[in-house]
Amino acid sequence: MKVRVEVFLKPGVLDVQGKATEAALHSLGFVGASEVRVGRIITLDLKGEDKAAAEAEARSMADRLLANAVIESYRIEVA
Amino acid sequence: MKVRVEVFLKPGVLDVQGKATEAALHSLGFVGASEVRVGRIITLDLKGEDKAAAEAEARSMADRLLANAVIESYRIEVA
Repeated sequence: MKVRVEVFLKPGVLDVQGKATEAALHSLGFVGASEVRVGRIITLDLKGEDKAAAEAEARSMADRLLANAVIESYRIEVA
Repeated sequence: MKVRVEVFLKPGVLDVQGKATEAALHSLGFVGASEVRVGRIITLDLKGEDKAAAEAEARSMADRLLANAVIESYRIEVA
């Protein structure tokens, strides 16, 4: 099964990369851009045909490795 | 308008981060994971109500700043 895990900094955590990107966009003339945030996306194939099991396994991966729960939140999609 | 830009390494470009993540997942016991790839996701708000214009502007942002066209490809979603 195809798994996508999106990892973003939690609201309230300063997104330095997002701020830098926003400043760079403005300096290039894209002045209408705001609220720029930069996250990670991890895609992978997972053996098995059970969607619920894949989702649970992906959640475990995110908790243990893919995201830092202190400052990041994640969202999982299984297809 | 809400804009999402997903940036991934092009197929054929060695994804070092993906390989490292895959090895780490395997060592944690997630042996069913394969084809792990790591990308970036940039979300932002864009002034204006014209979806086509927002998409064109986002494409320009990606070409000029958000993605490295030599090794990366991107996908844009406007909502």
